[in-house]
Amino acid sequence: MRNVAIVGIGHSKFGRRLDVSLPELAWEAIREAIEDAGLDTKDIEFVSLANIGVWSSEVSPGSVIMEYAGLNPSETIRVETACASGSAAVKTAYMAVASGQADVAMALGIERMNEMTTPEVVEILARIGNYFWEFHNFGPTFVGYYALFATQYMHKYGATEEDLAKVAVKNHYYASYNPKAHFPKKITLEDALNSPYIAWPLKLYDCSPISDGAAAVILASEEVAKKITDSPVWIRAIEGATATSNHSKRENLLSIPSARIAAEKAYRRAKIDKEDPTKYLDLAEVHDCFTIAEIMAYEDLGFAKRGEGYKLIRDEQTYIGGKIPVNLSGGLKAKGHPIGATGVSMIVELTKQLQQRVEPQRQAPIEKGLALAHNVGGTGHYVFVSILSLEKPW
Amino acid sequence: MRNVAIVGIGHSKFGRRLDVSLPELAWEAIREAIEDAGLDTKDIEFVSLANIGVWSSEVSPGSVIMEYAGLNPSETIRVETACASGSAAVKTAYMAVASGQADVAMALGIERMNEMTTPEVVEILARIGNYFWEFHNFGPTFVGYYALFATQYMHKYGATEEDLAKVAVKNHYYASYNPKAHFPKKITLEDALNSPYIAWPLKLYDCSPISDGAAAVILASEEVAKKITDSPVWIRAIEGATATSNHSKRENLLSIPSARIAAEKAYRRAKIDKEDPTKYLDLAEVHDCFTIAEIMAYEDLGFAKRGEGYKLIRDEQTYIGGKIPVNLSGGLKAKGHPIGATGVSMIVELTKQLQQRVEPQRQAPIEKGLALAHNVGGTGHYVFVSILSLEKPW
Repeated sequence: MRNVAIVGIGHSKFGRRLDVSLPELAWEAIREAIEDAGLDTKDIEFVSLANIGVWSSEVSPGSVIMEYAGLNPSETIRVETACASGSAAVKTAYMAVASGQADVAMALGIERMNEMTTPEVVEILARIGNYFWEFHNFGPTFVGYYALFATQYMHKYGATEEDLAKVAVKNHYYASYNPKAHFPKKITLEDALNSPYIAWPLKLYDCSPISDGAAAVILASEEVAKKITDSPVWIRAIEGATATSNHSKRENLLSIPSARIAAEKAYRRAKIDKEDPTKYLDLAEVHDCFTIAEIMAYEDLGFAKRGEGYKLIRDEQTYIGGKIPVNLSGGLKAKGHPIGATGVSMIVELTKQLQQRVEPQRQAPIEKGLALAHNVGGTGHYVFVSILSLEKPW
Repeated sequence: MRNVAIVGIGHSKFGRRLDVSLPELAWEAIREAIEDAGLDTKDIEFVSLANIGVWSSEVSPGSVIMEYAGLNPSETIRVETACASGSAAVKTAYMAVASGQADVAMALGIERMNEMTTPEVVEILARIGNYFWEFHNFGPTFVGYYALFATQYMHKYGATEEDLAKVAVKNHYYASYNPKAHFPKKITLEDALNSPYIAWPLKLYDCSPISDGAAAVILASEEVAKKITDSPVWIRAIEGATATSNHSKRENLLSIPSARIAAEKAYRRAKIDKEDPTKYLDLAEVHDCFTIAEIMAYEDLGFAKRGEGYKLIRDEQTYIGGKIPVNLSGGLKAKGHPIGATGVSMIVELTKQLQQRVEPQRQAPIEKGLALAHNVGGTGHYVFVSILSLEKPW
């Protein structure tokens, strides 16, 4: 397997982006990425595109984006794994370079969800995976599913609504220093606790927003990377796993089994001891579509023991200076969650962090040279765990 | 790059398949493929899935198919490149094995288009790529686009409606020996010529049908292939290219530029002389969504000189015994065209042909050990050209 380097990153402003069309929004990220890499669009041999796109009238968005960005006649493949689609795009571009099919490839993630109204988006999301049994029969929406996770977790382990709120406070705190975030503003614990319930115990501030945005990473072979950059970041592992989307078939609602499996596979490939990965990692971006999801991620990734994830946030151990800083971008919660873009955005953020070029207030100390992204599709229907490194993998 | 072998193939009956659900239809192909490979679903580490799915209420079909087929917790990625999605799935699974990410991977293509009515399907297809400029402004449907191709081609080169009809007669002839085909029945030249016009000069028998169906291929590394099969077929090249979906920006409507580029890339990788590829190939499956598309494919692939493709079918040179047998499966025209399944189905067919295990009436003589698949998304928005070989590539 060839080494694969990240040689360029780009990121649009996340938010309600009806000011631009889909290809224009894509171009904001693509332009930044090619400028960052010092390349031209003609150098990109392969493009993987993550875009759920069901909110849009564009049936096959790859074609219009490729043309608008001047990427034709390069090869492109659109990919989908629900909210983990961005990671699927990075993985696909990674495989293109690792296999020798391309020397330079781009993963692009983009979503423009505000083309639809909130109730329409909420219904479509709820239909993802086994909608027939669960959505049609019982009517749960995504916040409903995560409310079930939260309820069972709080009941079993003694976490409180305040613990959940603290995740939101942290992520908004860091988002306030990220100009690309959907909500670059701090909130207080009271703001979070006083926000209206959406599905008990989850309140408005426990939920990530419906965002539009785009993110792009350019990957290159070792040979090309050497020529064009002095500060490559390497992909050390990017591993996926799946789990049933029938919640009634899950062992419990305290953990996401596919997240544990994907993490184990990634740790094995990256030679990280799964018993204490925080010893190896400088920081992580995790999939906090709801605040409870971040706490579950701490446990599924092995950052905390089972049932003790909430203590990490209670003790502020996932702020800079703590055991492991998490979601210094603002996370899905405050940076925003334009579905197809999210997984790519995580890789953009971690690359910039490892290269120590994010805003100083949210820059993690980089001492170990490894960073992790955790991206969940559905409620774990699909999960990808990626590990980036400053050191060349092999 | 590691060698990648096809070690198992599966194919459902194509047709109007409302008798089974989406996962049940997928299982028909998956079961055949794993039995053919002598493997268990647990051996499949990675699954790429081609399914446009817009006709279905299932937003993220990967999850339900993976669960139904017992493929969890393996990694999966859904892919889309319009009608070339099946090839994108094969390419993605190929990259997974070639890169060393997986030792055994499956590409699955499936579509269940008859969930919608014909007018709904026709509208959705017409919206693929730049629908805003062309579909909304001028209203062309896909048969309309190909009617423009046919008109320009006939005007410039002197091909006739009878030449087009001969493509349909050939493909129905071979489909009559393919029990998996949507229309396993012969038609006469008169049947074709007397069928009603859909968009002049294209008639009903110039058009591929709206089909449901599934196809699967299992790919393995050389090491695994050696252990489980004595008759592997190898992927020698699978190359993609793109072109504008704005037909008003195409140089002309006589050829598909992305098909020429994808073919050149594939010939280069497979070390086939692009001046006369028929010297190297035993047979080909090409994307005959409309009869004119097969004639254009002859030229874009270099089987005939520019402007002389129609002579190949006029002289019956694409039947068994001719210069190069094309679409011995029945093609999209008569085997059927369940969009996501089509590209995978082509690889299933060519594998079976190279292994000399198709029905005797439609078995090509295998002398050179190379076969080609040509799969077009949109009207060339995306094209993949794949080359399979009996000999190990390197």
